[in-house]
Amino acid sequence: MSASDRYGDPAAQLAVLNDVLRLQLAHRSVRKFGPRDVTDDELAALVAAAQSAPTSSNLQPWSVVAVRDPGRKARLAALAGDQAFVAQAPLLLVWVADLGRARRLAARAGTEVAAADYLETTIIAFVDTSLAAQNAVLAARSLGLGSVFVGAIRNRPAEVAEELALPPHAVAAFGLAVGEPDPADTAGIKPRLPQDAVLHRETYDASGADAHIPAYDQRLAAYHGRYGLPGDWSGRVLARLRGPESMAGRHRLRETLERLGLPSR
Amino acid sequence: MSASDRYGDPAAQLAVLNDVLRLQLAHRSVRKFGPRDVTDDELAALVAAAQSAPTSSNLQPWSVVAVRDPGRKARLAALAGDQAFVAQAPLLLVWVADLGRARRLAARAGTEVAAADYLETTIIAFVDTSLAAQNAVLAARSLGLGSVFVGAIRNRPAEVAEELALPPHAVAAFGLAVGEPDPADTAGIKPRLPQDAVLHRETYDASGADAHIPAYDQRLAAYHGRYGLPGDWSGRVLARLRGPESMAGRHRLRETLERLGLPSR
Repeated sequence: MSASDRYGDPAAQLAVLNDVLRLQLAHRSVRKFGPRDVTDDELAALVAAAQSAPTSSNLQPWSVVAVRDPGRKARLAALAGDQAFVAQAPLLLVWVADLGRARRLAARAGTEVAAADYLETTIIAFVDTSLAAQNAVLAARSLGLGSVFVGAIRNRPAEVAEELALPPHAVAAFGLAVGEPDPADTAGIKPRLPQDAVLHRETYDASGADAHIPAYDQRLAAYHGRYGLPGDWSGRVLARLRGPESMAGRHRLRETLERLGLPSR
Repeated sequence: MSASDRYGDPAAQLAVLNDVLRLQLAHRSVRKFGPRDVTDDELAALVAAAQSAPTSSNLQPWSVVAVRDPGRKARLAALAGDQAFVAQAPLLLVWVADLGRARRLAARAGTEVAAADYLETTIIAFVDTSLAAQNAVLAARSLGLGSVFVGAIRNRPAEVAEELALPPHAVAAFGLAVGEPDPADTAGIKPRLPQDAVLHRETYDASGADAHIPAYDQRLAAYHGRYGLPGDWSGRVLARLRGPESMAGRHRLRETLERLGLPSR
């Protein structure tokens, strides 16, 4: 795997490369899975990788629920935008932004953790959950497993919390469907924005960066076209962010977080 | 590197292991750096690794500012809790949760992206920034470089935005100090919670998970003691989350985000 595939640009080359970078560059989301199970030993390795990620002040403000039961997977798939691959994956990991553990520590100690009420702490929980999950994604790939994030688990967070018996002060941040990639799957590596569009030196240069978007739009339109899909990158971003009606219920996340005990004030 | 170091528990073993997992398990934060620079080729590799991480709907809602200028690093270090290692690192990457790019696309197209006003979209930006940054952390390590996250970049986000000339609708999510680890640094690998404290099967089991915390508290107290530091894990978590006074100004993040153009409603 090379940088030119990653960027969809033959001119994109890295002067520094190794096996870890090659594994990262080759990332693609896997939504079609073969029949083999993910073993408990593999699950333990994914979680150990996740726990090895950095965490703010060693707070470790996350948990993960490993779901294998077909009925539960199907119910979660229905809650998460009815995406078949969620039920089809042998293992669904639901990553939980979890301030409940610290709240329970405080309750047992008869003290307060009022900082957990603030948006900053909710953000820490989501950030640390994400750092952990990304380590699991790469660990999975190193074991020959594929995965895909399921952001739609946030479409109906209260129902997901109920299905997983989450305690107060905890919310499903995202799902991760994991399994053996179906060898018949032809999905490719989606090119990313040119590096010059996202990397700034010393200070942010909006016009310099954005000048690289039109070439990327052409590349993405060609990539989408190969899979029979319309649209360039800019058009898809604008459609996805048009307004609350494009958010599948997630425009209510703030009030739902409050209801689940993450007031995020 | 083995799982027993990661967990500070000789009984913790993984039946599945490979070079990528070993690299992940060996993670530690590096806060003392040797004299050698991080090359531009290495920087390009870190950013390519970051861009290879998954991103929700391919939104790519982040940017990164590479800071090498000693004056700017020193000013950012002062803004980020006066932590000397921020200035000492040859390279400071400031990861930006960036909804500005999409807003500029919309402005140029004469359309709206009202979904960017919602907390859900702010969360997407922080999550995707985190997935990207964690790939960079591991890529750095694979190149023999160390790193440490700088959450304190959120202590004074408006001043940081000004220093980096960030456009509207963008906020520094966290810093990442990168450099060659000082070989004289004796910092160890901080043990994490036992896997049974964070991994749940099918549904969340709070009392089962929390039963593993006392043993971890003992391990952490022993680990801290080796570095002359007081406290077990629970005590430190409770102190860190006590209240707004323990947040170094970050209890104001919500109003600052609004001021920076991420209303997060």
